[in-house]
Amino acid sequence: MTMTTDKSPLNGVDTATLFATRDAVKETNQIAKFQFRAQNDWVSGTQSRSTISGFYGAMQEMQHERETVVVSDHPAVLVGEDHGPTPVEFLLHAIAACLTGGVANIAAARGVQLTRVSSTVEGDIDLLGILGLSGGSVRNGYEQIKVTLHIEGDADDATLHEIAE
Amino acid sequence: MTMTTDKSPLNGVDTATLFATRDAVKETNQIAKFQFRAQNDWVSGTQSRSTISGFYGAMQEMQHERETVVVSDHPAVLVGEDHGPTPVEFLLHAIAACLTGGVANIAAARGVQLTRVSSTVEGDIDLLGILGLSGGSVRNGYEQIKVTLHIEGDADDATLHEIAE
Repeated sequence: MTMTTDKSPLNGVDTATLFATRDAVKETNQIAKFQFRAQNDWVSGTQSRSTISGFYGAMQEMQHERETVVVSDHPAVLVGEDHGPTPVEFLLHAIAACLTGGVANIAAARGVQLTRVSSTVEGDIDLLGILGLSGGSVRNGYEQIKVTLHIEGDADDATLHEIAE
Repeated sequence: MTMTTDKSPLNGVDTATLFATRDAVKETNQIAKFQFRAQNDWVSGTQSRSTISGFYGAMQEMQHERETVVVSDHPAVLVGEDHGPTPVEFLLHAIAACLTGGVANIAAARGVQLTRVSSTVEGDIDLLGILGLSGGSVRNGYEQIKVTLHIEGDADDATLHEIAE
């Protein structure tokens, strides 16, 4: 593993701060305790709206720079009005975003300049489970989630593969 | 359980279609097989953008009425630029939205008119896990998720409690 000592942020990741944060956390474990929150209000039918703004971390109450409002609904085929993605699609987004952020950080820590990271996360779900029509044989949730990750950067395939792993 | 026979949609839920969908799925299990997708592109640092639009369901490829783009990032305290909520906050939103939609559907199916559903989902996470600083003793993910659900409607507390359960 090569640690970059360059001052310019590789992949937009401030590695100096990343390593300093890791060291600070190692010193004072309490800093690593976070609480995240979503506040949700029903609108109508299957439509609801979540507000994401405050969280606790680094031993204090904190606020995001901007409050984010996200709308969720069901499509017409699932008896909704399609005002936004379904809750289970936001879960797939969360998985994808988590992987992408991780890849960017790990690549930067290893001194690899990325040029592209893209992924598709697909989740197969059998709604017999949630509808209670399977007699308990079908799970209420995704049966499988498949991630296809594409990474390009200034390293050989083996190194990029390692970052993905 | 009381099934409503009123034609006006209770809680904005089209219960006639809801029950018809349930019956159709019971008849032809294949209709219940869905695949949801999120396509994610890295922007810079921990910032990425997911696009949610197409899905498979009811034995055909389908599209949401509108394509949704959601941005995720880390806050500055987690070495990001705070262009959007963290992936783990979107997970909390997904849980909240899933509960709210479920509550509205179940209440409508039971003939209960809701006036308010709101919830707060809080997730405690110890970042020692994801930073690999715990020697494997701290899990890489939420340690606990707490849901506070508030429901108001034209039914007694016991009935509203049952819906929440």
